[in-house]
Amino acid sequence: MLNDATDALVPLLPEGVLRDIGPAYLEEPRGRYKGRAGLVAAPRTVEEAAAIVSACARAGVPIVPRGGGTGLVGGQVMPDGTVPLLLSLERMNRIRAVYPEEGVIVAEAGATLQQVREAAAKAGRQFPLALASGGTAQVGGVLATNAGGVNVLRYGNARALCLGIEAVLPQGQVMRDLKRLRKDNTGYDIRDLLIGAEGTLGIITAASLVLAPVPPEVGVAMLVVESPEAALTLLSLAQARMAGGVTAFELISGQGLRFLDAAFPDLRQPFADRPDWLALIEVGLPSGLSADDALEGLFTEAAETGLASDGVIARSGQQAADLWAIRETIPEGNRHIGAIASHDISLPLSEIAGFIRDCSAMLSGMADLRINCFGHLGDGNLHFNLFPAEGKTRDAYDNIRKGLSRAVHEMVLARGGSFSAEHGVGRLKVAELAEWGDPARLAAMRAIKDALDPAGIMNPGVILV
Amino acid sequence: MLNDATDALVPLLPEGVLRDIGPAYLEEPRGRYKGRAGLVAAPRTVEEAAAIVSACARAGVPIVPRGGGTGLVGGQVMPDGTVPLLLSLERMNRIRAVYPEEGVIVAEAGATLQQVREAAAKAGRQFPLALASGGTAQVGGVLATNAGGVNVLRYGNARALCLGIEAVLPQGQVMRDLKRLRKDNTGYDIRDLLIGAEGTLGIITAASLVLAPVPPEVGVAMLVVESPEAALTLLSLAQARMAGGVTAFELISGQGLRFLDAAFPDLRQPFADRPDWLALIEVGLPSGLSADDALEGLFTEAAETGLASDGVIARSGQQAADLWAIRETIPEGNRHIGAIASHDISLPLSEIAGFIRDCSAMLSGMADLRINCFGHLGDGNLHFNLFPAEGKTRDAYDNIRKGLSRAVHEMVLARGGSFSAEHGVGRLKVAELAEWGDPARLAAMRAIKDALDPAGIMNPGVILV
Repeated sequence: MLNDATDALVPLLPEGVLRDIGPAYLEEPRGRYKGRAGLVAAPRTVEEAAAIVSACARAGVPIVPRGGGTGLVGGQVMPDGTVPLLLSLERMNRIRAVYPEEGVIVAEAGATLQQVREAAAKAGRQFPLALASGGTAQVGGVLATNAGGVNVLRYGNARALCLGIEAVLPQGQVMRDLKRLRKDNTGYDIRDLLIGAEGTLGIITAASLVLAPVPPEVGVAMLVVESPEAALTLLSLAQARMAGGVTAFELISGQGLRFLDAAFPDLRQPFADRPDWLALIEVGLPSGLSADDALEGLFTEAAETGLASDGVIARSGQQAADLWAIRETIPEGNRHIGAIASHDISLPLSEIAGFIRDCSAMLSGMADLRINCFGHLGDGNLHFNLFPAEGKTRDAYDNIRKGLSRAVHEMVLARGGSFSAEHGVGRLKVAELAEWGDPARLAAMRAIKDALDPAGIMNPGVILV
Repeated sequence: MLNDATDALVPLLPEGVLRDIGPAYLEEPRGRYKGRAGLVAAPRTVEEAAAIVSACARAGVPIVPRGGGTGLVGGQVMPDGTVPLLLSLERMNRIRAVYPEEGVIVAEAGATLQQVREAAAKAGRQFPLALASGGTAQVGGVLATNAGGVNVLRYGNARALCLGIEAVLPQGQVMRDLKRLRKDNTGYDIRDLLIGAEGTLGIITAASLVLAPVPPEVGVAMLVVESPEAALTLLSLAQARMAGGVTAFELISGQGLRFLDAAFPDLRQPFADRPDWLALIEVGLPSGLSADDALEGLFTEAAETGLASDGVIARSGQQAADLWAIRETIPEGNRHIGAIASHDISLPLSEIAGFIRDCSAMLSGMADLRINCFGHLGDGNLHFNLFPAEGKTRDAYDNIRKGLSRAVHEMVLARGGSFSAEHGVGRLKVAELAEWGDPARLAAMRAIKDALDPAGIMNPGVILV
């Protein structure tokens, strides 16, 4: 449904950019928000994107930028306020250039993560950012949300993998800063300001991204640990031994394994008695050191010091993939059960074990429920998700859901953690940010938003109220 | 000399913060700018720092933040305009906390790099940022200028090593964001905006910084390479073999070695015939792989493929230090000769060899001079410095100095490089940034500056005109 403002907008847009408003443009994966769009425009070039933004700025029409639409916090939809134009990056999906000898790729915002990873592999390099949604998630969205994933421990978030961006700023100016430089100290870091701004300060249209060398030796192991404490000590040991060679370090709980049993009885798990806690470790090591030997050495020391009671080391790529499949099927196992509430939190590493213990105790005092705590332990990033007790359904928790989440988040904050580790704020956590964010930082954010987007048209309602 | 504004300021300041205005507060290392200060204030706490900034904001007195004073672009002095208050971080120099198991240290802005490095070593960790001026340079200045150094290839710039900051914003608000988290996606990246803003958007008073594990195996080698091309191919080979284990990769020119001969005839150099080009490599490797073996393996492959014609591998810590001493004495060798002009530039890696060749040819057509090109090749960061021909003095080049620098910078820009890689803009490169910066990016910078510092009191004249 067009309103007057969008009607007036149509003649101002570049020719051929409008698309049919299909339902896929109006959805987000968790189904919490219903999107609306007066128009859907898909530019083919940055100049077309700039023309669209300019026109919207003049007409006062809000813009919702849209990448792959995989975000989990509602940043890709606008359920209320003036009906927006939805700007889809789907046609700006080229890999513009690959520089294998520099370790750099230049990709347009609409290219999927998988496209980038395939182009990197073809050039004998890797793009390290790995998400379950990588076949759909696009470069622009990944940067706008500063996405994480399983390799952050070694390679950093999306932010750390971006050397330069091209973007359209909220009044239609094109910022051309697609540098391929590791060092460039020429004024304010506008790139990092747009990264993580979730489309509220401009639209990223292309980026130069870091490609890393493929480690000559790669290995995967899964170790049984007694507790999160033991997992953290094991992480520390692994990092001390591997000199930066630990690529991923994931925590898996017995509850997660039992959910997998229920949802995917055919999925092969290496330990017949489901352990309380598992650590999944991937290493990437130099030429001359076998990954098997390095993992054996780690396991031996971990066993001798009582950190690990059992473990398997993958002896083939297939076995490695099988171990990873356990970790990567956990979210599906969770969906099968149906969560009461999910929490994407991070904590200082030394606070994690105490948090898991105290928060679990607190919650079991509040309600009869099950907790599946898993995630990127190496980054201090837990997915701390709550599920109905056996025999109950999630509806039974409708009245206490908010209270449970608030209690979790308050404990996270009290321990110096974050209530949004890798998913972002979107619309989902706007109130939390307003309540819990540092006031001076929030005031600076607001001042910057007003300065760069005086008309307030860029993804209104996301991040800032 | 106090003027009326600073006179009126004194009663508004916290008790006991004023210091005598010694000459050390008014100098910068290259002696190009003469600083002035109506008052020097050294707060002991962030609250005192905030009170000073508030008072200046109300009185309209500019503030020049001062760390160790080692910056090379004049950002620490204010030679003209309203006489400023100089805010020195010297008394905020505590290490607030060390978390070895997290790999985090929280240091105040006035702590020197060396203090941080020593505290890290005491905790069995390392703080990887290493600068020649580390005994004097302070955390706040290092962050405000996003300093680099020799380990950026592996560990990143100052920006990459900072997890959180505490800062005073330009109207006196304290931003408390000293998080110790690897992941925290809660709105705009104000931290990275203050990092690299050279004191123009606020004053960093403390930071939580990354401590890295000390690699079990460390090795250093110096290889003779025929050309910068060969050095870059060697870098690529080293990175492919070492899986992220290359800590530093420095380029040294024959000209630099000959300057060392002239300035420090007693400095031991490993190659009797001074080679045209040397690569200095440091690796940090996992347990189980000897650094000697890894470097031997690299050297053998480099020799077989014609990339390196000779080389030495350090057999002891002393030998490693001796090899590093050659690299680290080069700036002193340069000072002994006296540069016509210095250039802190960066280039995409695949542009470096062509740039060195073409720029050298262009300059030799413009003047009779010598070039010492050296630096952090792994980061694409060259110090491309020009010296008088033998028998001439730098004064002889006074008339053409600016033209030479402009020609160098224009060639850098034409190849997608930066005219300020790691030293920053300061006052020295304000005109270059205004001329060569992307207009949309400059406009965004200006809008942010005006929004956060409406009175324009924070380090005026630095970065933006």
